[in-house]
Amino acid sequence: MELLNVDTIEAARGKIEPYINKYLYRTKEVQIIESLDKVLAEDVYTSINVPHFRRSTVDGYAVVFSDTQGASDTIPVFLKVIGEVEIGNEAKKSIKSGECVYVPTGGMLPPNANAMVMIEYSEMFSEDEVAIYESVPYNSNVVQIGEDISEGELLLSKGTRIRAQEIGAMASIGKSVVSVYDNLSVSIISTGDELLTIDKSLLDAKIFDINTYTLLALCEKYKMPIKRALVLKDDEELLKNTIQEAMNDSDIVLVSGGSSKGKKDVSAKVLDELASSGVLTHGISIKPGKPTITAFDEESKTLLVGLPGHPVAAMMLFEVLVMSTIQEGLGKKEERTIRAKMKTNVVSAPGRTTLQLVSLSVIEGEYHAEPIYGKSGLITTLTKADGYVVIELNNEGLKKDESVLVHIF
Amino acid sequence: MELLNVDTIEAARGKIEPYINKYLYRTKEVQIIESLDKVLAEDVYTSINVPHFRRSTVDGYAVVFSDTQGASDTIPVFLKVIGEVEIGNEAKKSIKSGECVYVPTGGMLPPNANAMVMIEYSEMFSEDEVAIYESVPYNSNVVQIGEDISEGELLLSKGTRIRAQEIGAMASIGKSVVSVYDNLSVSIISTGDELLTIDKSLLDAKIFDINTYTLLALCEKYKMPIKRALVLKDDEELLKNTIQEAMNDSDIVLVSGGSSKGKKDVSAKVLDELASSGVLTHGISIKPGKPTITAFDEESKTLLVGLPGHPVAAMMLFEVLVMSTIQEGLGKKEERTIRAKMKTNVVSAPGRTTLQLVSLSVIEGEYHAEPIYGKSGLITTLTKADGYVVIELNNEGLKKDESVLVHIF
Repeated sequence: MELLNVDTIEAARGKIEPYINKYLYRTKEVQIIESLDKVLAEDVYTSINVPHFRRSTVDGYAVVFSDTQGASDTIPVFLKVIGEVEIGNEAKKSIKSGECVYVPTGGMLPPNANAMVMIEYSEMFSEDEVAIYESVPYNSNVVQIGEDISEGELLLSKGTRIRAQEIGAMASIGKSVVSVYDNLSVSIISTGDELLTIDKSLLDAKIFDINTYTLLALCEKYKMPIKRALVLKDDEELLKNTIQEAMNDSDIVLVSGGSSKGKKDVSAKVLDELASSGVLTHGISIKPGKPTITAFDEESKTLLVGLPGHPVAAMMLFEVLVMSTIQEGLGKKEERTIRAKMKTNVVSAPGRTTLQLVSLSVIEGEYHAEPIYGKSGLITTLTKADGYVVIELNNEGLKKDESVLVHIF
Repeated sequence: MELLNVDTIEAARGKIEPYINKYLYRTKEVQIIESLDKVLAEDVYTSINVPHFRRSTVDGYAVVFSDTQGASDTIPVFLKVIGEVEIGNEAKKSIKSGECVYVPTGGMLPPNANAMVMIEYSEMFSEDEVAIYESVPYNSNVVQIGEDISEGELLLSKGTRIRAQEIGAMASIGKSVVSVYDNLSVSIISTGDELLTIDKSLLDAKIFDINTYTLLALCEKYKMPIKRALVLKDDEELLKNTIQEAMNDSDIVLVSGGSSKGKKDVSAKVLDELASSGVLTHGISIKPGKPTITAFDEESKTLLVGLPGHPVAAMMLFEVLVMSTIQEGLGKKEERTIRAKMKTNVVSAPGRTTLQLVSLSVIEGEYHAEPIYGKSGLITTLTKADGYVVIELNNEGLKKDESVLVHIF
């Protein structure tokens, strides 16, 4: 009685992956400050040493370290202060044994100086003489040339997700423009005679459109620009024309609803007609999310995805099929996962990958995952969930106390 | 030799918290699609039932469940098809025993029908007769009125962080506008004669400005609008005028650099003069991040924070002092933490809270945290880190194999 010739989720990913790799990873040069959360499309090497001078990490006196040996709280060593280094300026005047120079935090050490004494361990004794109450080792409180980053070094590798600190690291070597992978643009089309936009009043057996909102929010989360978001009546011609228009300016067209095997199932037919690949996958052995369709058009370079009409299934398949394939291709590692212990047994759907919603709690310093059940149309099951656990196709279920990987929403 | 009268990180948070609570939590009405990642400022109750009609979860036939009892793969039950429900339309015609009506997924069940038979378990026998090959229980494949959300129910509580599914849940009850806490606006001022903007060439003992970039990126991460980002020379008048101007249009003014106890330490003096509260905290017993200053001006309603000049310390204090206090006040729970096992012992700084940078790896399904060491000025230590562990003031350190909470960047 199996009416759909279903793919596993891995097979479905495998069918769209070569197209995504070939057509959708465009690179773009951006100012580093615009690169947050993007993925690096180049290896970043440095052409300078950081720091490019010997830098003090404290406010205090640059000294010849051997001069301070034996100094202590009670028995100071006296040094002659021969000058002061201004922050940002070159320290030209060299010192010799018995002499010192004031250097502020971040300032350059003078030639011959090889340690810093913190000002807290000193006391001015006369106008040009300072008492040192500390014995400092060689290179104490000094950052060496190239200690943070050496000239020619690989600073950041291609495929790195850019966080605030990566932007800081690029700034530190004076790199102002960087090559990143461009975010993919999306069109969202929800179909169904039963859908009402939320500015309307409920009537008959109509329901408010949910998928447009959740998919818009997910695209915003991933910073994917939205080309259009529309709610359409069930009308094959209208759907076809709208998708065709969207293919002209979008990298991904998401069509939600109209994908189950019912009388009004036209998405598959339309996607098959519009995409050069024809329909690649029609039905995935996953729960929820079975009625999912994929296709790729090589002429317009567009990934076409028919998502289930059920809001929970639509959100989950967008994550596990579309986003995970795109991000894996960029070498972006899965970041939002947490190890947890199952609180109860969970039975999986036979012959299908199961996406089990869970809520998390901390018990004695350990995360515990509790399954959340609900019919897949019920959006509130998702608001109670912190994430989901993937139960593989051939796994019969999860056992109480089993360690699982929770994918966090 | 302690020159600063330092606060613990808890005390420093405690001093700014009442001001933040009193002055900075403004609420704002936004379209639900603009509410992603914001915090709800109202309890959201529903005035409708979801669904507001008995809805089928499958394509198939609405039946009187008792009619199907005894039906199986080999022995079907025959029912008369008396009509079809269109999706989105009211099902007016009631059925009686021996009858059924076609209903698509999401469609309304007709009066008297009390179960759905999936189309896969049926076969048209004649023009108006269908063979049913399955015995279905009462209410099978039907979502009851209010099963997802009941009228008058609390859907989402004040303080909830809004994700895609919360937006979907609001859409499902037709709520288009929601009250959220407004994001706080920020001005970023980096000071130091040694700082070069990255469009310049390196010379003398100057270094490229890092803090403006990392702080800009962190503000972008938290979606805080930026009013200005400037690099200033060390000049008391200039700093004072610039901060004063920023106080007019910003909720938070971040001043980085100029906060350690050196000859050029003017930030504390300027903040003390400009803020009605005077300086609240000058120095925190935390490593890195000791030279941190806070103040609050009640007239302009501005939080003033002097962050350390060291990029690592500036980033970390922005997170653990500024953002954690703001988010805790909103009831937003810490989300980005992972439990891990320490790979090695870590010695903490005596009498100070230690923020220990770590990198994470998975060994046999468990996260392990490895400490990353580096002088606090070195931005590359941060690019190697996945997050940090907080070692409390009176904790002597971490032991190998100890379970720790890693705050993820």
